[in-house]
Amino acid sequence: MRWIRFTAEGQTGYGIVEGDRIAATRGDIFGDWQRTGRMYDLAAVRIEVPNIPPTFYAAGLNYAKHVLEGAARRGVPANLPMQADIGYRANNALIAHEQDVIIPRDATEAIHYEGELAVIIGKKAKNLSEAEAMGCIFGYSIGNDVSERTWQKDDRTFFRAKNADTFKPMGPWIETELDLDAAQTIVRVNGQQTIAFATNALLFSIATFISRTSQYCTLYPGDMMWMGTDGTSPNIASGDVVEIEITGLGVLRNRFVREV
Amino acid sequence: MRWIRFTAEGQTGYGIVEGDRIAATRGDIFGDWQRTGRMYDLAAVRIEVPNIPPTFYAAGLNYAKHVLEGAARRGVPANLPMQADIGYRANNALIAHEQDVIIPRDATEAIHYEGELAVIIGKKAKNLSEAEAMGCIFGYSIGNDVSERTWQKDDRTFFRAKNADTFKPMGPWIETELDLDAAQTIVRVNGQQTIAFATNALLFSIATFISRTSQYCTLYPGDMMWMGTDGTSPNIASGDVVEIEITGLGVLRNRFVREV
Repeated sequence: MRWIRFTAEGQTGYGIVEGDRIAATRGDIFGDWQRTGRMYDLAAVRIEVPNIPPTFYAAGLNYAKHVLEGAARRGVPANLPMQADIGYRANNALIAHEQDVIIPRDATEAIHYEGELAVIIGKKAKNLSEAEAMGCIFGYSIGNDVSERTWQKDDRTFFRAKNADTFKPMGPWIETELDLDAAQTIVRVNGQQTIAFATNALLFSIATFISRTSQYCTLYPGDMMWMGTDGTSPNIASGDVVEIEITGLGVLRNRFVREV
Repeated sequence: MRWIRFTAEGQTGYGIVEGDRIAATRGDIFGDWQRTGRMYDLAAVRIEVPNIPPTFYAAGLNYAKHVLEGAARRGVPANLPMQADIGYRANNALIAHEQDVIIPRDATEAIHYEGELAVIIGKKAKNLSEAEAMGCIFGYSIGNDVSERTWQKDDRTFFRAKNADTFKPMGPWIETELDLDAAQTIVRVNGQQTIAFATNALLFSIATFISRTSQYCTLYPGDMMWMGTDGTSPNIASGDVVEIEITGLGVLRNRFVREV
């Protein structure tokens, strides 16, 4: 099932994507919900960020090539993480499919995409084993963990390197069924493919991250966890369009525009 | 005005503290609200976390003595931060006044308090100057940024060192009026004072943090920013009661209990 958050007729809510139509719903997508009976054309609505989390978790350094190439770029030794220690991102930075990423006026040219699988939690969960972990997942979406590499290297925190407004495109929707082992993450810049990798070729699996995090932190419905990316990005310039495709999920497309 | 979030008769909502009574309200404390006409005894209600933020910001290393003593404890050179780069904490960890901090079973003895001023944002804000910054503040509360120092030193992130469930006591309420320059932060362990410092003797001021953050990140009503702490804490053991007082705001009191 494919859940979309959208605005039509001045109302924002959730619906179910059925082909090129949306069946509007009311209620709690993580609990009790009903169809309202209203239908909309997918092409005619405004697509919104599909999930605003209570806590926005993000795995860093979770694909080998990304760690190795990132270390090489900075001229430092590569250190693969020893444990699945989860990090954080911030809600102010979320934007929807087809909304523009605004590159701040004082950012350098080192603006990079990171194509990521977004995992949305559906149930309150604590102390899950790895065997139990996948059972708390509601669905999957696509995220672009946009990063300004100079700020990421030099600042004490990631507040502007990764959480500047518009730096977290996400969408277009949440898909509740996904064959993780078959999924490929493919990134295109202006229509040209720049990388493709097996979405589930993670250093630490989704189950490992969820289980370990849940030993200390209660997970709540709507919490989400972005799983990291592989490889490295070219510098993205004003006017470039970045598409992140995860096969089985769809395509997240955003133009980058430098603030003037 | 003193805003409290509380549960009475099975309902959770906001009210205004008037002496030892609460005048219940309905609506949006950051927008339109009304008194319901119902009154409760402050002593008879359950006090809740006074604010669940969309984004939970936290300043680290924002008092000189804390930076110097922390570096000495770790045997490394002290580096005062050069810029007001804001960090993050997570909502799962929030607990209210008088709720217990649960020390995880596998935590070391190095469990520390950090008594902090919590600043609650009341208005959507972007690109504020330092002169404008204080105008977006709704009010102030007290936070205890509980930390497990071994995990803080060794893990790749602060997910369990600072964001384990119950590690962010906050409250008891939000006070909209505070004479910042007169305020003292006082910490007591089992009734014995361990530190007192001028709440506003910050390395980077509240206005500097709000202004700098808002150059990149839109602030929203309910976002909050914890301002850091001074000095260092003794190890807090199971059974200890930690009180953080900020004069003019009140006292946040929590017992620490080790998980068995």
